[in-house]
This record gives sequence, C-alpha cells and structure tokens, in this order.
Amino acid sequence: MIPSLHQHSEDLRTGRSSSLELTERALDLAAAADGEGARVFTRLYADSARAAASASDTLRAAGLTRSPVDGLPVSIKDLFDVAGETTLAGSVALRGYPAATGNAVVVQRLIAAGAVIVGRTNMTEFAYSGLGINPHYGTPRNPWQRDIDGGRIPGGSSSGAAISVTDGMAVAGVGSDTGGSIRIPAALCGLTGFKPTARRVPMQGVLPLSEYLDSIGAMAPTVMCCAKMDAVLAGETFVAPVTHPLRGLRLLMPTNVVLDGIDEQVAAALQTALSRLSAAGAVIVESKIDAFSELASINAKGGFTAAEAWTWHRKLIAEREAAYDQRVVSRIKRGKDMGAADLLDVIHSRRRWIAAVERQLAGFDAMIMPTVPIVAPKIADLQASDDAYYAANGLILRNPTMINFLDGCAISLPCHGQGNAPVGLSLAAAGGNDHRLLSIALAAEAVLKN
Amino acid sequence: MIPSLHQHSEDLRTGRSSSLELTERALDLAAAADGEGARVFTRLYADSARAAASASDTLRAAGLTRSPVDGLPVSIKDLFDVAGETTLAGSVALRGYPAATGNAVVVQRLIAAGAVIVGRTNMTEFAYSGLGINPHYGTPRNPWQRDIDGGRIPGGSSSGAAISVTDGMAVAGVGSDTGGSIRIPAALCGLTGFKPTARRVPMQGVLPLSEYLDSIGAMAPTVMCCAKMDAVLAGETFVAPVTHPLRGLRLLMPTNVVLDGIDEQVAAALQTALSRLSAAGAVIVESKIDAFSELASINAKGGFTAAEAWTWHRKLIAEREAAYDQRVVSRIKRGKDMGAADLLDVIHSRRRWIAAVERQLAGFDAMIMPTVPIVAPKIADLQASDDAYYAANGLILRNPTMINFLDGCAISLPCHGQGNAPVGLSLAAAGGNDHRLLSIALAAEAVLKN
Repeated sequence: MIPSLHQHSEDLRTGRSSSLELTERALDLAAAADGEGARVFTRLYADSARAAASASDTLRAAGLTRSPVDGLPVSIKDLFDVAGETTLAGSVALRGYPAATGNAVVVQRLIAAGAVIVGRTNMTEFAYSGLGINPHYGTPRNPWQRDIDGGRIPGGSSSGAAISVTDGMAVAGVGSDTGGSIRIPAALCGLTGFKPTARRVPMQGVLPLSEYLDSIGAMAPTVMCCAKMDAVLAGETFVAPVTHPLRGLRLLMPTNVVLDGIDEQVAAALQTALSRLSAAGAVIVESKIDAFSELASINAKGGFTAAEAWTWHRKLIAEREAAYDQRVVSRIKRGKDMGAADLLDVIHSRRRWIAAVERQLAGFDAMIMPTVPIVAPKIADLQASDDAYYAANGLILRNPTMINFLDGCAISLPCHGQGNAPVGLSLAAAGGNDHRLLSIALAAEAVLKN
Repeated sequence: MIPSLHQHSEDLRTGRSSSLELTERALDLAAAADGEGARVFTRLYADSARAAASASDTLRAAGLTRSPVDGLPVSIKDLFDVAGETTLAGSVALRGYPAATGNAVVVQRLIAAGAVIVGRTNMTEFAYSGLGINPHYGTPRNPWQRDIDGGRIPGGSSSGAAISVTDGMAVAGVGSDTGGSIRIPAALCGLTGFKPTARRVPMQGVLPLSEYLDSIGAMAPTVMCCAKMDAVLAGETFVAPVTHPLRGLRLLMPTNVVLDGIDEQVAAALQTALSRLSAAGAVIVESKIDAFSELASINAKGGFTAAEAWTWHRKLIAEREAAYDQRVVSRIKRGKDMGAADLLDVIHSRRRWIAAVERQLAGFDAMIMPTVPIVAPKIADLQASDDAYYAANGLILRNPTMINFLDGCAISLPCHGQGNAPVGLSLAAAGGNDHRLLSIALAAEAVLKN
C-alpha cells in the first residue's frame, strides 16, 4: 500500500519524518541502479528539491504550512515548462531548441504551494499515444509482473508520472490528459488518476497536443490525494471533499462501445465493483448512449488532435522527421490532409455531441465505465508490431477519450483484487462537476478497496 | 432629419400618434410604387405588424409599456429565422428548403419587447460582401444622389436594413455584422450603426457567415436609438447611457492602414470631426498600430469567413451553384482550399493579434477612424466590373473588419455636413466595453451634429 499524501503530511506534522528525509528517499529510489528511475525521469532536480525540502522543514518548524502538498516530493511530466530548460515532451527532435523563459503556471503553483519537484517524468513522445512506450528514453515498466518477459506497459502518455508514484519516487505525479493520458496509466498501474474539467487548470507553459482537449491533473494513491493536488493545480484553496452517500446515488453504465473488447480480468473486476456499489445502495442503470457510437466517425479524419498536432509540428517535422518516434509522427501527419471544413465539422459535431450526452446524463450523478477494457499488455509485444501497437492504442484510448470530447471530468479508481492485474474503474461527469465527482469518488473508493 | 426612437415614443406617450399609425405609415412607404420598398424588403409582415401595433396601443392605453421599442416599427435582416419561413439570407439558392421551426432569439426578444416587425430586409447574398448589391432582389439605392446614374450603393451586407430606416419604413433596422455589415451601410447612408461585442447577443436562429466573427446590432438615427435596440437584442434592461465628458477623453487614431485610399470627401469630413472633438477637449493621439498592418496577411487564405462559409455552403454549392451570386460563391469557394492548419493558424494568430491591439488601446478611451475610406460608389460601376466590385469591397470592409477580428465593439456616427455625401466616423473599443463606448459615442454625436 503506497502511503497517501495525508499520511506523509501527518508524518511531517508529528515529526516522524521531515521533508528532506522524504525527498532524499525519493531521490535515492529514482537513482537506484536496479530501479525504473532511469526510464521514469528525463531529468532529476536533486539540488533544487533538497533546497525546497529544507525550506519546507524550516517553515514547518516555524508553524507555517503553505498547502496540503507542502514539503511533499512530486514529479512533473516532461511537457511542462521550467525556466531555463528546453521542454522536450519525451522527444529528441526538440533538442537544441530554445529554453523556456518561465515556468508553466502549474509548475509555478506547485512551487508556491511548497511542493518539492523531484524531476521531469518520461512520457509518450509529444503525448500522442496511450501506451507509454518511448523509443528514446525507454519505457518505464508497470509494477505488475515487472520482471516477466521484459515487463508490461505503464500506460501513457504520462508513463513516468505513474511509475514515479508506484515506485516511491514521488507521492504524486502531475500529468496531462488529452484522451486519457492520466487515467490510463493510473488504471494500468493501480493508482487513482483525476482528469479535471479542462478549463479549470491553465495550460500556459505546457507543450500542447490539442488545445481543445488538453487538461492537467495528477496521479496519486487515493482520491483525497488527487483532490489536494487538484486544488493546487487549479489555484483553489483546498477544501476537503465530503464523502457523498452511496445510497440512492444514480450511476449510468453505458452498454455500447465502452465494453467492446473487454478482457476477462477487467470484466471480472468490473462485475465485482458494480456488485459492491449496488450492495452499498447505488442505483446502477445500464443504458445505451447513442452518441458514444458516433464518436469514431466524428473523429475519422483524426479529429482535433491530428489537426492541432500537425499545425504545431509541421515545421519541426519538415526539419527533423527522422528524429521522431515513427509511430507518433505517422499519427501527427494525418492532420496534414484535414481541411478547414473537416476541423469545423468536428467543432460543430462536438457541440451537438456534448448536448446529446449531457441530456442523457441529466438524471444521473455520474457515469461509470472501465477506464481501459484490457489489462496492461507486454511492452515487447507492442514494440514488435505496428499493428499490435495501433490496435492496443485505439482500444486503450477509446473510453477515456469520450470524456475529453465531452469537455467533462473523470477519475479512475483501482478496482482489482490485491495481487491481480491492476484495473481502473472510471467515474465521469459533465464539465464543471469536479468537486461533486470527487465526493462521489471518495464514496466509491471506500467500497472498492480490498 | 429622421425622427429618433425617443421622438416616436414621446409621440406615442402623449397621444400625438399611435403605434398603428406609425405602422401604417411605414407599410405605406414600403409599398409605395415610387419608393425603394420592393428592393428593401424580401417580405413584408403587414398583417402581423398591424396586429402587434394594435396590441401595443391597447397596452399603452392601459398604462403598460414593455420596452423602449414598444410599438415602434422595426425591420429585420433576411438572415433571422422566423417560424414557418425559410430563411433565405438574400439568396434564391435556398428556396424550397425547410422552414425555420422557431424564431431566432433576437426576433423573439423583439416580439416580447413589443417591437412591430414590419418585414425582412434585403441583403448581400449570405451577407458575404460589404457593398449591398444583390442580383436576385435588386439593390436598394442610397438616399444620397439616388436619382443620378441609377444611384449609389447602400453598403452592405445589411443594405435593406439601412434603407428601411432612411426611407421611413422602420425606425430601426436589425442587422448582422461579420466585417462591417451594420457599420458600412450606416456610414454610407448617414445613419448610426452599432456593432456590439459578439458574445453579448445570441446567434441562435441566425444563418451564420462566420461564427467566430458574427455579431448582431441595429442601425438607427441616433446613438440613443442604437442603445435602446441593443438592450432589447442583448436581453438587458435598458438603462439610458449617460453622456461621457469629452474633456480629457483620450482617443487613438491609427495612422496606418485605415487611412489608405481615403477620398477627399471622407478626408475633409474626418478633419472636421477631429477638429470638433479636439475643440471640445478630447485628446486625439495619432499612432501606428502595427497589428493592423498584419491582418491582411493573417487572412490571406480567406480567414474565418471563407473557411466557415465553405463549411456551411459546400453541400448547397454542390447542388445549386448556378443559383448563387457568382461574386459571392467565388469568395466562399476560397475556403475549400484552406487546410485545418490554415484555420488553426488564424485562430492562434487572432489571440496574439487581439493581445497586441488591446495592449496598445490600454491608455485610451476609444479608437477612432473613418468607418469607410470612400463615399458610396455608383451601383452601375460596381455591377459592370468584377475588378471594380472586389476592389471596392476590399476597401470598404477593411476598417470595420479590424474590430470583428478584435472581438471588439464599435459604432459608426454620421460626421458629414448636411447635403454632403454621408461619411461615418467609427469609435471602437475592446470587447465588453459596449456601455462605455455608447456613453462616449453620445458625447461625440453631440459635437459632430451639424
């Protein structure tokens, strides 16, 4: 069991630990030769982390605490600007490009909140895949069956963020989520991952994938951990969410699309989760959401992500295409053939699509679905074959993407039995319902725990 | 001198006139064989107008007034939905297409406010030109030199809206403005035309030209008339704007782009206007606005309007291209060649452009410029030549378009000497400053009047 932010904060408060001790332990694990650190971090901030930790200890000794993450080691995904460094976003193509002149807004907020930033985490190149495989910096291995056949994927794109937390190199990992990049690694690695409503967390200083869909959130051990991180990232004062009663809670379980291709382990974990929620008094209504069946055709030409990624990358591709992950660049290049009318079609369709889904959600407290329909595949299997890579990627991104297109919020909670493959259960809601969703997730978490 | 809404309302209040009398007079002028009515209106609502007028008289007799436009005849541009009618937007290509199932929000607001809608006004086909020439329904003639050489253009695209007011067929004309379509006809015909910040007036039920740039406002005799109409269209309670003191008011007069190609009459009227404003104590600062020089290249591939118009029209063009105004359809078809990245470039450029212009406006109360740099050309000259048509169109749209791209608000005030060609002076501000701009315009109007 990974300790929660609350446990760490209590340790600091009661003097059982210091921020500097927590930080040294995280740095040690990150640097351990037999660990995943070399594949988890693209850069470690050992010196500034120690300085931040010491400052936190000094302030705490004087009775001053800046936020619920004060003094806690956290990691940041490689796509956030840090002043003086080139933001590479898991690429090598951007090496030698100008350094950022300032910190991303969320990085600045973490610093001001007293978080100890231990390092930048590895990711799918440019965040454009849900698998977490990176040919340049290696692929951090999933903690589940880590030593069998070269290991399993961590999920992505925020791959290093997840493993930094599972492996104790950070107590929370800050990632981005354009189509599941926080929720997927959380689900595949047994963590909790929260994707807030996009507009709540500013994107300034973040290397974009799709401005229409990008959002920023954290992976951490528990719902309350995610709520604390979210308050810092959104620039809000943290008010602890109150557990929502489960009795009478109405949950909509879509019966189309999201269960297609589900494997046995996920199906079993899902059934157990639904039974437990029902037993606790939640009303689970199974229903088709017609709009879900339409999304693939709305995005048939590549959708926002291909169009926006192509726009951002076309100059870099012209200069350094060979330096790209070829599986990523081939996805980006789909945007080249999209016309302005194709993009406007997606914009217009999205408006109607959101209205249709929100109408169907109106009678419910949240939607519920498996975050990912399969357990983590083996890294080697996906590396070996383009077909396997793209098939797994499509399947893994499919469910979470619905919520980005909805402009909604969602959280993935672990729902597997101890020792089993990690499986994530997603709770989701329309945009703006973040605080209520966190309250509901607190309640669900309590019955899903083993 | 055309009577203001205030004068009409006073006539109604004091019993010097009734709404039915006002309405009959408007309908008579619209139907007069020697008038412009046949080219101003694509449809008259004689019966429902009389009914609305009678109801207003009945309510007024009982002491009930619904709004500052209660009982006043107004016209609506042919692109607003009216339940049960096909919205043609000055086209014939849409004949036979399904009728609107409801009223546009602004039409519904006018009805609820007690305005008497006398008819739908002619316009440039699909609103896609600033000249007001319409090959299907004729071109309403400018009141200035109406009988010389077949007359001069009214300006567009809200051509009929302007002439409905100049010719007494309505006390105000509701139009749309994507690149000047309210301010241009106001300037060329000697009216006041207000283009509010786009987001203030809902576009539901309006045939779009560009959702990024479209806005809805009115042309009327005075600033106060426009303020009253704006309150109704924006769904606000009307609070009469207070005249802003001119002394010390800081006005920014751009020296680049907006004065290029200015003719002698506009230059003379502009000089007089600037002298009067200065004499009244306004501080006029002349300065280059670099961003203005960049707009043509940002929009070189057609900008929002071509991309969005192509998206909306492609199916109709495939079916009925020959039924289009060929000068309009050729402009729409530029959008066909725009890529998704071209559109995203415009979206991104606009963000930077607005920030740059707003920075420069920060020290000023408003911007000031000629609405249109030339007086109204002759209809026949522009009909005769594609080159003349496109050259005049580019020149006439150029200045007002800046404010749509800025997402700002602007008002065009008449500033010509009596008997001279109508000339409009525009006051403009960043988005959201509508009420303040109207207060400033009230002050400017007082010194610009002859």
